[in-house]
Amino acid sequence: MSSKNTSSDNKLAKAIVLLSGGLDSATVLAIASQTFDCHALSFDYAQRSLSEINAAQGLAAAFGASFQLIHIDQGVMAGSALTDDSIAVPEDVLDESDIPVTYVPARNTLFLSHALAVAEVMSSQDIFIGVNAVDYSGYPDCRPEFIRAYENMANLATRAGVEGKQLRIHTPLIDKSKAEIIRLGNTLAVDYGLTVSCYQANAEGEACGHCDSCLLRRKGFDEVGLSDPTRYF
Amino acid sequence: MSSKNTSSDNKLAKAIVLLSGGLDSATVLAIASQTFDCHALSFDYAQRSLSEINAAQGLAAAFGASFQLIHIDQGVMAGSALTDDSIAVPEDVLDESDIPVTYVPARNTLFLSHALAVAEVMSSQDIFIGVNAVDYSGYPDCRPEFIRAYENMANLATRAGVEGKQLRIHTPLIDKSKAEIIRLGNTLAVDYGLTVSCYQANAEGEACGHCDSCLLRRKGFDEVGLSDPTRYF
Repeated sequence: MSSKNTSSDNKLAKAIVLLSGGLDSATVLAIASQTFDCHALSFDYAQRSLSEINAAQGLAAAFGASFQLIHIDQGVMAGSALTDDSIAVPEDVLDESDIPVTYVPARNTLFLSHALAVAEVMSSQDIFIGVNAVDYSGYPDCRPEFIRAYENMANLATRAGVEGKQLRIHTPLIDKSKAEIIRLGNTLAVDYGLTVSCYQANAEGEACGHCDSCLLRRKGFDEVGLSDPTRYF
Repeated sequence: MSSKNTSSDNKLAKAIVLLSGGLDSATVLAIASQTFDCHALSFDYAQRSLSEINAAQGLAAAFGASFQLIHIDQGVMAGSALTDDSIAVPEDVLDESDIPVTYVPARNTLFLSHALAVAEVMSSQDIFIGVNAVDYSGYPDCRPEFIRAYENMANLATRAGVEGKQLRIHTPLIDKSKAEIIRLGNTLAVDYGLTVSCYQANAEGEACGHCDSCLLRRKGFDEVGLSDPTRYF
């Protein structure tokens, strides 16, 4: 296909894809897989819902991507409802604080920085992340200006920049609504039954149906007029 | 003291100090300790010389700083002479390649990103790093333009930026020669006998005397006219 990114020996170029196991990053993997040989990164950062890691692994396998689980020390990203059991996840009403309590300190910076190192080790110049500024505008590290600043920094930080190669941070979902993401994923045959979006999913990957992430996901499927394959506990 | 950074309750403000256990970061800790309550971060990234972690812990204790050891998964920063035993550390001649083989992929980006998360968790706005553009100009992530880009990104990535607080990345050594750093450290009573600079120090913290880091350190002490307390194996 003429749209494929190929290296000099005509193989697909390698891309690093941040894969949380949720709906957004699953769609990003589907998009990236169209034109890249994908290496998926997931993170164990002592988050509330570890079943998303199993979901990520299943999604990587479904798209033929290699998979790497990276550990980040407990405590480094403390103080969020997603990393501290003493802070409740808000339920049934969307958290419209300036910065929601589910915001995790420097999470996307740390995820992208691991991706940057792995990209350099694998000689990849392309990193994909499923940030979205529409439905989660309260997270500072989901804003387009953050991504642009990160990309600029990354090109100064590494060998690629010195050697005149351009590192790219791809954010194909950044300006899409949840409904638009689901429609796009359906055209790319994403099996959303493999994904886990809930902030507090149980070990089986079953969702609460009440957290912001569950509410936004359900609203998205409702708008598209499709049934959500999410399993609830 | 009027020069001290104090918070509203008149306590010293908190700073995060990246502490490798070497000469440069020990000097940085001494500088930061003059005006901040310091929290030192060291990293186990499967580097060749793990004795530097013991050195860092000793230095933190000497300066009354709290100490945190952070693990980064093996393989994330592969492909460097410092993280891959199959790549030899150059000896006896300074490596003047565009980028030395001891360059570690995205290392300062990953270290600063952990520091950024910890700073946010601890409500600190000040991060210190001992980068130096004079003696190690071949490392892209030691250049002033990298640090400026990182600081800009950090202020967009986190709560501080949204709330109108300024995060600062301090690089007090960036334009100093090794001799100038040693002179400065001496005025601040840094015990360089506690530091380990060697890229391939043994478990007892004894140095090879032949790697770039040993050569630069010895040259610095020679220029100052002081004896280097380094122990060699």
